[in-house]
Parts: sequence; structure tokens; C-alpha cells
Amino acid sequence: MEKRTRSNARTGRRKSAAKEFRQLPFSQLRNPYQPFNIISDDEVESLHNKSLDVLEQIGMNFLLDESREILKKAGADVDETSTRVRFDRGLIEQAIAKAPSHFKVHARNPAHDLEYGGNAMAFVMVGSPPNASDMVGGRRPGNFEDYCNLLRLGQSLNIAHQFGGYPVEPMDIETPIRHLVAEQALIKLSDKVGFGYSLNRQRILDSIEMVRIGRGISEDTLLSEPSIFTVVNANSPLVYDRPMLTGIIEMARRNQPIIITPFTLSGAMAPVTVAGAIVQQNAEALAGIAFAQIVNPGAPVFYGGFTSNVDMRTGAPAFGTPEYAKAVVIGGQMARRYAIPYRSSNVNASNAPDAQAAYESQMSIWPCMLAHCNVVKHALGWLEGGLTASFEKVIIDAEMLQMMAEFMKPVTINDAEMAMDAMAEVGPGGHYFGCAHTLERYETAFYSPILSDWSNFENWQDRGSKDATLRAHEIYKRLLDEYQEPPMDPAIAEELDAFVDRRIAEGGAVATD
Amino acid sequence: MEKRTRSNARTGRRKSAAKEFRQLPFSQLRNPYQPFNIISDDEVESLHNKSLDVLEQIGMNFLLDESREILKKAGADVDETSTRVRFDRGLIEQAIAKAPSHFKVHARNPAHDLEYGGNAMAFVMVGSPPNASDMVGGRRPGNFEDYCNLLRLGQSLNIAHQFGGYPVEPMDIETPIRHLVAEQALIKLSDKVGFGYSLNRQRILDSIEMVRIGRGISEDTLLSEPSIFTVVNANSPLVYDRPMLTGIIEMARRNQPIIITPFTLSGAMAPVTVAGAIVQQNAEALAGIAFAQIVNPGAPVFYGGFTSNVDMRTGAPAFGTPEYAKAVVIGGQMARRYAIPYRSSNVNASNAPDAQAAYESQMSIWPCMLAHCNVVKHALGWLEGGLTASFEKVIIDAEMLQMMAEFMKPVTINDAEMAMDAMAEVGPGGHYFGCAHTLERYETAFYSPILSDWSNFENWQDRGSKDATLRAHEIYKRLLDEYQEPPMDPAIAEELDAFVDRRIAEGGAVATD
Repeated sequence: MEKRTRSNARTGRRKSAAKEFRQLPFSQLRNPYQPFNIISDDEVESLHNKSLDVLEQIGMNFLLDESREILKKAGADVDETSTRVRFDRGLIEQAIAKAPSHFKVHARNPAHDLEYGGNAMAFVMVGSPPNASDMVGGRRPGNFEDYCNLLRLGQSLNIAHQFGGYPVEPMDIETPIRHLVAEQALIKLSDKVGFGYSLNRQRILDSIEMVRIGRGISEDTLLSEPSIFTVVNANSPLVYDRPMLTGIIEMARRNQPIIITPFTLSGAMAPVTVAGAIVQQNAEALAGIAFAQIVNPGAPVFYGGFTSNVDMRTGAPAFGTPEYAKAVVIGGQMARRYAIPYRSSNVNASNAPDAQAAYESQMSIWPCMLAHCNVVKHALGWLEGGLTASFEKVIIDAEMLQMMAEFMKPVTINDAEMAMDAMAEVGPGGHYFGCAHTLERYETAFYSPILSDWSNFENWQDRGSKDATLRAHEIYKRLLDEYQEPPMDPAIAEELDAFVDRRIAEGGAVATD
Repeated sequence: MEKRTRSNARTGRRKSAAKEFRQLPFSQLRNPYQPFNIISDDEVESLHNKSLDVLEQIGMNFLLDESREILKKAGADVDETSTRVRFDRGLIEQAIAKAPSHFKVHARNPAHDLEYGGNAMAFVMVGSPPNASDMVGGRRPGNFEDYCNLLRLGQSLNIAHQFGGYPVEPMDIETPIRHLVAEQALIKLSDKVGFGYSLNRQRILDSIEMVRIGRGISEDTLLSEPSIFTVVNANSPLVYDRPMLTGIIEMARRNQPIIITPFTLSGAMAPVTVAGAIVQQNAEALAGIAFAQIVNPGAPVFYGGFTSNVDMRTGAPAFGTPEYAKAVVIGGQMARRYAIPYRSSNVNASNAPDAQAAYESQMSIWPCMLAHCNVVKHALGWLEGGLTASFEKVIIDAEMLQMMAEFMKPVTINDAEMAMDAMAEVGPGGHYFGCAHTLERYETAFYSPILSDWSNFENWQDRGSKDATLRAHEIYKRLLDEYQEPPMDPAIAEELDAFVDRRIAEGGAVATD
């Protein structure tokens, strides 16, 4: 952030020389098509009923004492000698019915506010990898510089609608103060919808407070204007741990959106069948959603799905597999059954931003669209099963997501678009390059790519035979070069910095719970 | 073919040492899901009606005299002073109603017979590129050695269901005899469903005769057992040229399947709008299909769609774009409107078998599945907008197509698969690696990739940090090494060789029509 002035000056010089970077405008995506189903409504009911059987008969372990007290009061069957909680199916059904089907989340810049539910769709930057990589610097442990650069890319790319976790873990910032420094950078370097980790009570409360300061609103306004996301993962199988439950409690009480996502790797932490893994995913998701609604009826939540499978020969997790694709689509069917916004992810297990990374990602992006996924996490930059944030993959993903956004623009069918006059004008054997119908439309008729190279082989060779990964490298470098920090009221910046300074002086997150 | 003995001996030695190449078995694919629609039934009718208006009011040029005589006799409005033919909508509707909705095509090996129509799906090797390329040899003009090697790959890969055109043009074989030498190699090196080009009357009749000899059947049996494909492209806009019309006549008369495909590049040979390009595609396809049905009512035909767009800044054709994806889906809706099997393609415009090639291909493969495409042409190996057959891309495509085949296997939902007993056995916080439910299923539970590398970064690095393209190179080399020529009755081989020798002695294809 210190470099802002210099960076802007440099950008100014470049802008006059270089072509403008052309991308789709920021917009709230809407999926105009019918959701795609791969199981019948009866089968959805079977999965639903079986997962309620699981919650009634097996139950889940809720590790936080406070959560079990809340659940006991609500009528759940809480085992006094362990952490096990069993749920009557009526209790679950009544609680989840209170979850809203639609809500809005506010960004620091109102132009970046987003809606969730129904056919709305948003793409989220990669969250939480411990490593970053690019072609020149190679793979390295997450650090604050890469963290900030990934924030800048997410701010610059319009198809990145929001953040969801640190785009790389800034491991060079010591743990007790990391959430403060990282959230401060997130709020300053981007004006899009942000995120806080549910890692203990102090951390999530600090994050909520910082986002409130960043938006310049009161605590009351924050209650009515959700402004920060968190993700709560079940510790599959069938466990919610203490930080996660604390996160649900604090976020739900403040009406901030919680993405509740079991991480059900089929064959490891979930049954080896897709049906079994989905039953477990559904049981865990419903229990978490019900808990949030018991804490605060009407709190905004997402039904999260993250069912993939492992390589049964090695135990290695796999992503963007056919089983993953099926689970994404079925997850959407379950979420629609409950009329709760749906979260899935754009994933792959490749070690390089190569053809495998691209095709496994497409095995995620298409099912997400078909399933009417509302929030696609890890949509830009995820590599290596989530162990690395790849700068080149951010650009490859941006291109793939823009293409999907464009696919979701409905085809207009009317006399002018059907162009019979143009056909009569051009006639058999002619061409359409110069006809009036073309001249009126050619500038905006087709999607214009940011990464794909459609030039002929000779021209491509003359320019250095650069493959998509190398071109993605050059594009991300250029975007960082041209990045402009979004404006912030100096009084807000001062308040935010003062809060961070004070909390760092206090030692940051020192409590263990 | 001379190398057969040596090659088999080498393969024999290798087989004992190397691991078996694991791939999905050859099988007739069935799409179990509902077709996906992006326009309404009313909009389908609008496109249908507008394309009939085009055929009534503008018409098409049929360049072959014989075709116009046939059409005149059938009641079409044939202009005596030009090649223009206009069609009453009733004539079109009556003719296309005679096209069969389902048929079977016979391969030299009955295990490789294929069905078409309804929810059947087949993947076709790339057809007709003038160049071949691999990472080591680079890009070179098509030649007979690469041609044969691509045939061998198509034979070896089970997910390649059939051939559709020379997988690369063997330009080192002189033109008059090329179809004889190439067809001979195709029939010997593969026992899958093959192809003949409609380039003039002699060539297509030679190809039909060779396939008949290869299958060892009579001319009567050939009439009732379709055994060879051809593709007929409209010369868009609104022209059918002489070789193509000759192809329709000769193939339809012999009851052999014709894929009738307008090549409607939006902005160049078709209107700049998707709706306009589809109207033109539909008009051209219906006219060709109607002509085939007038020649021989009930002849097996495909409704072919190949609507993509050009880059309006350069005129370069683009493939696997959002517009392409929409056109593929709408093409499926049109084909189902007529209950005629549907052909589309797996395409991309990348100059290298890289991430762009992969994601543009996925922007084709997913729409093909959603559109219930019955024949996916260029499914393996197409690169550079069809100007190059890439050996590595064959393998990348095989992986992507296998994944799609696996996605099309329905999820089973019953008590055993929902695995509640396993969940009770494992319990909260456990894992499923050793439980009975897993042990019973783990060997076949999940799709096992041929190309994707799911190993962790360190292992991947230790093995040379090979990206997907480099691994694809190694796999294609190995498949060629392990290739085994399918058996052929020596009497049939002798008859086939004698036919080719005689036709070569006659000078090959010397007629111009």
C-alpha cells in the first residue's frame, strides 16, 4: 500500500501507451436456464430421509459446550457423557425452514453488492492455500506480498465477484496478528465483498468489526446489512469442532452469511459411494444450518457441498472428477429441495496450470452452472487440490468463468436477430462481412477473450509460440502493473488502522476459544 | 502394415514388463439425463418456420444438374436459368418426416457396431486436418505415416468409437489414388466403423465397395446393414456443390449414413447473430436431408450443426466459444424437433495442446452431452481450428471423453449405496479406508484416469514435473508401441488388396464428377 503513489504514476504512463485491458463489466450474474437434474425427485427424498435417519440415530459430535447447551434448550437429544447430539427430524425440518432463500450482501463499494439465492451466481477468489506459485518464481510458501498481489488481481478482474478466505495464507505474518493485518489489506486493496475466518471468537469478532469500520456503518446497520462471509466446515465425518461452532454462533447472531460446508471426500471421510457421501454431506450440512437457525432464526446461510473422491490406490484426493461433477449437480438438487442458497467450488488436482488444470476445472464449472450454484468458491486460482494459489491459473479461470457468464446470456430470437433480410441480401455463395446486419452488430456480437489466442499458427509462432499458461503469466503481470487501489475515505482508513494498531498492541488473538 | 510382425514381437516383450494400459471398455454410450434446453419450444418453432421461409423465398443453389432434375420431379421450384431451387414448406416437411430416428451401423468387428438416435452417443476421431503435430516432431504436412499412426491410436483407444474422415490428410499419396490407399489402411488397421469422402462419384463408390469387401458381405446385405459414413457439408451460405450432391445420391441409394452439416461461421458465411446463423444452418440442413429422403426415402441421415463465430477484428474462425456452446445446444433442440440423429463436434482454436485447447474443448463436450448429440465429430485430436491433428490432443481428449462417459453413468440410490451402516460403523471422527462398505467397492468405485496426475507435488516434481501435454506425449508413444493390428480373414485381405491394385492400375479417380 506504501507503493500506491509510485504504482499509480507508473500505470498512468503505461495506460497511454498500451491497449486497454478488455474484460466483461462487473455484474450480478443470473442463470437464465432450468436447473439440470441427474436424480429424480423421489431419489432426492430418499437422500433427504436417509440423512435425517443419520442425524436421529447416529447424530453428530458438537465439540463446543455452548453449542450443546443451545441445542439442548432447542430440544435436541444431547448425550450428557459425550459430545454427541442426536436430532429429531422434526427439529431439523423446523429449523432449516427458517433459513432465508434470498439475501443481499453489501460490499465497501455498493456497485459490488451481491445477491444470493434463486438464479443468482457469484465467483469467489481462491481461499486458504498454503503456497503460491507462478512460472517465474515457482512454488513458495504463502507470504504477504503474494497475498496482496492476489487481492489486487481479485479486485482488478471483474469476473471475481468476491473473496472467500485468504487467497494465499500469508505465513510470514505471525499467527496472533495475521487476521488483523490480512483483513486490513483485504479491506483496503479491494472494495468487493470480503471474508473472515472462524478460527476463534476473537478473530471472527475482529474481522466483523473491521468490515463494519471499512463500510463506515453502525453496528445496527451491520445487523440489517450482511457484509462479511465466513465458511464453516464440518470436520467430516459427523463432527463440528469448537472454532467452527463459535463462528456459527457469532456470525449468525450478527446476521452475517455463513457458508456451511461438509468436506466429504468419498472413500476417506465419507462413504466410498456418491450416494453415501451425499447422505453424509446432507446430514452434516442440515445439522449446521439447523444450529445456525436455532441461534438466530433467519440468519443467512448457504448449503455447502464439497463431495469429491480419493484415488483409492494412493489415498490422494482428486478433484474435478466425474464423481465430483455428479455430486455438484446432486448437491444443487438438495439445496433447491430446501430453498437455501447453494455453494460449490471450481477445483482440480493438477500440479501445474496446464491442460489437466483446465479440464478438471471445467468438470467443476459446468456442473456448478447446471446445478444453479449461487456461490462458486475457489473459482479463480486454485491449483493442486487447494495446496497452491497459482497466479497463471487465476487468469485461466477468469477466461473460463467469463465464457460461462457469456453462455448464460440468453439467445434473442426475433425477426431482426433471425436475419432473413441479410440472407436475402447476401444470397447463396456470398459472405456476411460487409452486410448491413453485420455492420450494425459486429463490435459487440461475440465474446472477446482475455487469454485465448485465435490467431493463425504462423502469427502465433512469430510471436513466440506462447502457450496459454505463458500468456496467462504475462496477463497477470500486466494486471498488477495497472492495478489501482480503490478509494477510501481517509477518516475510515485512519479508524481502521487505529483499530488494527490497538489490537496488535494487545497481542492480537490471544484467547484460545 | 509391413511392420506388423516385428511390432507385435516388440509389444509382446513389453507387455510382460510394463503395467497394463487401463482404460474404460469399448461400449455403446447412452445419455441417461434429460436433454438441456436454452430456448423455448415456441422459439424452436420460430427458427423452424423462419428457415422454411428461407427455403421458400430465397432457396438454395444446387450445383449438380442431376440433383435439380430429381428435385424438379419431386415438386420443387427449380429455376431454369440458374442453379437456384426453392422449396415449398410442405415438400420439406414431408421429405424430412421420412428420415429414420434410429439406426445401427455395422463395423468390421461386430463388437464395434454402433447405434444412433435417441440417447445413444458416439465419439469420432478427428477428420481432415492438413497437418499433424506432436511435441517432438513439431507441426508437419499430413503424411501417410502419421495417418496410419492416428488410425492405430483410434483403434487402440476404446473411447474412440469410430472414424470420420482421414485423421490427417496423407498428402504424400497422390490425389487420384489417395482414397484407395487411405481406405485400405483404415480397413486393415482398424475394425471400427469407418468413413468415405464424397469427393466425386468414383471415390465414394470405391470406398463403399472396399468397406463391403472388408466386412465380407454381399451388396444386398450392405443395403440392409449400413457400414460406412460420409459427411456432406453445405457450401454456406445456401449452396450444395456437385461432389457433395453426388455423395448424397450414391450414399442414400445404398442406404449408407450421411452426416449433413452446414458450416455456418457466424459473421462470415452466416449472419452475425446466433439466431440468424441457426436459421441458416437449419435451412441448409433441412434442404440436404430432404434431398436425401427424396433420393431414397428412409435413408439414414444426421442433422449436422457446425455454427461457430469468427473473431470480428481479424476474421479468424473461433471454436469452443460461448456462442458455439449455445449453437450446439440449440442445434440439439432443432434435431429433436425433427427426431433425426444429431451431429456436433469437439473443437478448439488453440495452436498448442495446452490449457486453451482443453477449456475450449470442454466448452464443446459439455454442450454436446447436454444437447444429446449422437455423433461427436473431431472428438479426439483436433487442434488449431481443424488445421492440425495433434497426437497429444488425442490423449487429452480421450481423458476428457472418458470422464464425460463416466459422468453419464447414473448414480445408484438405494440403502446399500447410501451406506448408513458404514456411517454407524465408522462414527464421528473416524475414516472409511478400512470399513467393509469400502473394501467391497474400492477397486471399481471411482473413475481411474489415463492422463491426469493426482500425485502430490513432491512426487510429481521427483518424476520430472511433467505437465499434462508431456504426459500425453508419452502415452501416445506407448499406445503406438503396444498397438496390435486387428485380425482379418486372409481371403478378405487378398480381395481388398486386389481391388486396390486394380483400381490403382486404372489410374484411381480419374473422372471429374
